[in-house]
Amino acid sequence: MFSCWLSQLCRGLSTPTRRTTQLIWSSASRSLVLSSQRRIPELSSFVARTNTCGELRSSHLGQEVTLCGWIQFRRQNIFLVLRDFHGLVQVVIPQDEKMPTGEIEIKVKTAKLLNSCKKLPFEIKDFMKKTEALRLQYRYLDLRSVQMQYNLRLRSQMVMKMREYLCNLHGFVDVETPTLFKRTPGGAKEFVIPSREPGKFYSLPQSPQQFKQLLMVGGLDRYFQVARCYRDEGSRPDRQPEFTQIDIEMSFVDQTGVQSLIEGLLQYSWPSDKGPVVVPFPSMPFAEALASYGTDKPDTRFGMKIVDISDMFRNTEVGFLQDALSKPQGTVKAICIRKGAKYLKRKDIESIRKFAADHFNEEVLPIFLKTNENWNSPVAKFIMEEQGSGLVKLLETQEEDVVLLTAGEHKRACSLMGKLRLECADLLEARGVVLRDPALFSFLWVVDFPLFLPKEENPQELESAHHPFTAPHPSDIHLLYTEPHKVRSQHYDLVLNGNEIGGGSIRIHNSELQHYVLATVLKEDVKLLSHLLQALDYGAPPHGGIALGLDRLMCLVTGAPSIRDVIAFPKSFRGHDLMSNAPDSIPPEELKPYHIQVSWPTDAETEKSSSNHPCRSES
Amino acid sequence: MFSCWLSQLCRGLSTPTRRTTQLIWSSASRSLVLSSQRRIPELSSFVARTNTCGELRSSHLGQEVTLCGWIQFRRQNIFLVLRDFHGLVQVVIPQDEKMPTGEIEIKVKTAKLLNSCKKLPFEIKDFMKKTEALRLQYRYLDLRSVQMQYNLRLRSQMVMKMREYLCNLHGFVDVETPTLFKRTPGGAKEFVIPSREPGKFYSLPQSPQQFKQLLMVGGLDRYFQVARCYRDEGSRPDRQPEFTQIDIEMSFVDQTGVQSLIEGLLQYSWPSDKGPVVVPFPSMPFAEALASYGTDKPDTRFGMKIVDISDMFRNTEVGFLQDALSKPQGTVKAICIRKGAKYLKRKDIESIRKFAADHFNEEVLPIFLKTNENWNSPVAKFIMEEQGSGLVKLLETQEEDVVLLTAGEHKRACSLMGKLRLECADLLEARGVVLRDPALFSFLWVVDFPLFLPKEENPQELESAHHPFTAPHPSDIHLLYTEPHKVRSQHYDLVLNGNEIGGGSIRIHNSELQHYVLATVLKEDVKLLSHLLQALDYGAPPHGGIALGLDRLMCLVTGAPSIRDVIAFPKSFRGHDLMSNAPDSIPPEELKPYHIQVSWPTDAETEKSSSNHPCRSES
Repeated sequence: MFSCWLSQLCRGLSTPTRRTTQLIWSSASRSLVLSSQRRIPELSSFVARTNTCGELRSSHLGQEVTLCGWIQFRRQNIFLVLRDFHGLVQVVIPQDEKMPTGEIEIKVKTAKLLNSCKKLPFEIKDFMKKTEALRLQYRYLDLRSVQMQYNLRLRSQMVMKMREYLCNLHGFVDVETPTLFKRTPGGAKEFVIPSREPGKFYSLPQSPQQFKQLLMVGGLDRYFQVARCYRDEGSRPDRQPEFTQIDIEMSFVDQTGVQSLIEGLLQYSWPSDKGPVVVPFPSMPFAEALASYGTDKPDTRFGMKIVDISDMFRNTEVGFLQDALSKPQGTVKAICIRKGAKYLKRKDIESIRKFAADHFNEEVLPIFLKTNENWNSPVAKFIMEEQGSGLVKLLETQEEDVVLLTAGEHKRACSLMGKLRLECADLLEARGVVLRDPALFSFLWVVDFPLFLPKEENPQELESAHHPFTAPHPSDIHLLYTEPHKVRSQHYDLVLNGNEIGGGSIRIHNSELQHYVLATVLKEDVKLLSHLLQALDYGAPPHGGIALGLDRLMCLVTGAPSIRDVIAFPKSFRGHDLMSNAPDSIPPEELKPYHIQVSWPTDAETEKSSSNHPCRSES
Repeated sequence: MFSCWLSQLCRGLSTPTRRTTQLIWSSASRSLVLSSQRRIPELSSFVARTNTCGELRSSHLGQEVTLCGWIQFRRQNIFLVLRDFHGLVQVVIPQDEKMPTGEIEIKVKTAKLLNSCKKLPFEIKDFMKKTEALRLQYRYLDLRSVQMQYNLRLRSQMVMKMREYLCNLHGFVDVETPTLFKRTPGGAKEFVIPSREPGKFYSLPQSPQQFKQLLMVGGLDRYFQVARCYRDEGSRPDRQPEFTQIDIEMSFVDQTGVQSLIEGLLQYSWPSDKGPVVVPFPSMPFAEALASYGTDKPDTRFGMKIVDISDMFRNTEVGFLQDALSKPQGTVKAICIRKGAKYLKRKDIESIRKFAADHFNEEVLPIFLKTNENWNSPVAKFIMEEQGSGLVKLLETQEEDVVLLTAGEHKRACSLMGKLRLECADLLEARGVVLRDPALFSFLWVVDFPLFLPKEENPQELESAHHPFTAPHPSDIHLLYTEPHKVRSQHYDLVLNGNEIGGGSIRIHNSELQHYVLATVLKEDVKLLSHLLQALDYGAPPHGGIALGLDRLMCLVTGAPSIRDVIAFPKSFRGHDLMSNAPDSIPPEELKPYHIQVSWPTDAETEKSSSNHPCRSES
């Protein structure tokens, strides 16, 4: 007696008219038993429905079903479109006994109103039109959007595949490590938690780094965890105070081993509709990444590489180039923007030069290869006349290209050029040129980083380029005691489309070496790490690992504009939960057991602090 | 040229002589390729070894292998036993070219020392002999014990099976919810985290309760998470400030649905060597649990149920029984200890009576059924003469049994008897009687709890028996507005062998009802929950869920003496990490960004606070 009308599978499609009522459609009996072949998850086990709104087909004809959902659309209380987050289905409420026409529809036997619904503050379907502040305030409604449903469900599925790969295929052990821990040296970005002992605080660690190394000492030789981590960086766009990493550590492993594991992990867990992941990933030394892309996380989806043209200008008579090259490490760098003359406007070039002047205090010289009359400066004209053929050869320039040229210290000039390279890519894409295929996923290992970097505030002293547990490169270990700034590390970063999505290293497993690095090279307080140094003394195996930033990875996989779009309940960029209004005031009596009190800032301090936050409004 | 000598599979067996060196055994080539059938995880992928120390058999004869491990035992630098956390294998270092006899052994081609090892602070094998404080201080060594390896590896496997069941079989979505949140009403046990805004604090939630309900409003209709939760209870034995729960929520579900899901979950994830889990689990109303077992978490592995014998004593002339029965709700309760007269000593009975007097201010009357001469009091003798046959009939007593009898208000008398029941079980088992089979897992649902309880400090006011989001029992909903103390809830607890391992409920999904409960019945500040009340207004579906305490569950599954034995890095019962010495002091300048300062207690306060901690020493 019951027939079904074809439902359209539109996962998570949202409600234009879901304003007044919510209905559950309930037939008296549950005659439909789902296939016992469990390849596809049973989405209706244990609950009131027999089917989701997305799965009914003409093969279900004649069956009795129970559906639960929200009203997507209704007409004259006769026809309804019922929605859940798996799809839509048409429902007809019989007005008389005459059977309606049509192939599949659901004829209502009983209907039960389960809850009503106030007028929504915004339409669910207008995902992108809302301000983000409004979306975050009503996050529970925003989660109903197609995009958020897709992002969160895909995240769950990908993480599950990663777990299968690690646990079931490769015998990794999922170990939960504490988040209430002790502060780490240099851990100035760690949240603190007062304890009930006066003056004693826990810290929320930035990663399970120490714990995973201690697990290796403890014989849990293949560890992983989907770990919650914390970092208090105040207000920074597209960062979250709590975030998630896929945290991995192995004993008796080298760099190649960790890299193969991760390549396999991503290949295994990659969504099938995003195209295959080709392994092994290419690898690039840090020095090359800097020289060719001006960054440690090159976007290798497109060329426009930085070229060193210093040699060509050794005898130049152009003043600013002469100046730059006369200094130690002075260089001249160029990038070539293909067809730039066709797409870039004069004001684009001006904004590029302004950026270089403002942020790097450097001059950038644009050279248009469109026509010779187009030189925008006598200097450019002079250069093209003097070094033109060399430039054309080295940069493989063609008609209508634009060359950007700058001079300065190697690292600084590369860094500037790296930023301009991305800036120009944005400009070209805004003009309709496709440089970075959004369907392309370009993975890259960046390796051979320096182990130490000069401290910014005092370049005579060294700090860890990554963290103090990173092992030196075996070929450079002799330099550690003489020229530590020259030592390369066994650190590796995983880069995807110009974003760092992971980083790891082979660790120091020798207690004496670790002590030397901490105390002598870094001049850290070793007392804070005495437990780790001691652990290394008790037969610590060689070990190494990696951590993948899950939020960033999911952001790239889903193509979401922000990591906030792959997190169910993210904080605003100022660290606020706009839905519940956290952080919040706490009555003084609730602080008493923790032996703390608020130091209210003076008016002067408040003023100063608000001037540090030029943008006080949210989102 | 290489032969193997049978290795003994002894997972995680620890080192008696592992004191001086650690070796890696490395053959030049890796000729052994593991089976490509991936039913068993590949434990040697990506790393230096070709095999674990536990897996070599005579079928590997003649293959070249690379092993990595710790020296378990060595004799004259010729024979070695090499160990990792999968087993042991015998190794021989060739002294000349003559082949040794024997079926399987490993003949060393090259050996490489990877790290040395200081004298250990304790022998790994003496798991139980160490003090727990020492074990926690050197946790990374303690983790090498057979027990800890087994506990943590089994935990990982069981959680993985749970994830497979939820994600792959039943379409649940794993959603990570924030831990930096806002304080909840009555959340006095929440840790606070100062933010960079003066006077504003995050709180670490005790569970993702609000978030999982908001996810239901957001259309993520089958949610789960292995969730880190926080509770600051100061010093309590066998509690941890951070703990883990399997957190589950579903839309359009009723109590039976959640219970079936959990039964299936435990059945699917249960370790095969622990015997099958029989479903469905029996169910018991709270009132029956209290009346028969004196607790809401009955250990149903043994009988010794509490029996109400009030009616038998309506006309008694025994003073303390007369007194008790003359009061409203006055009752007489008894338990029968089978063969108690044979196993219990007089001093056992005295300690039982002392416990009742000290903790409940109640009298307990023991009646020995051994011989009539044995009456230890004239009252007991008088009772046996007056009510003897009735008692024998009601309690089914036999020769040599002991009956314990008390009188008082129903709940109080039951509670005392429940405690004595467990106490007597301990005493009998100490005398060799097996009451509670350690291989038996007795699951039980306890249902039909009261929705509210009188507040201890002011019995005129009500508080939630569980939490304010619990839905009332459908049959009792009319009482909510007239006699709320009589309303039963849709809460359910899962009990295993007398331990609560989970609890959940069908939630209130109607905004008005939720507001009434919060504001009118509980007199809570609804402002703290305005986001949740608002969310319910926007078409919230009916929903319910449960949370399983993973630490407690693993403790029972593994038979560990404490939850600290199923956690990799637990805190001591005073909340300390004895390995790293957390919580720790923090320099005042690091507190400054958080606008807090320490309120150092005065000497008088310090004294008072230490008297609250009678047991200051650790573990």
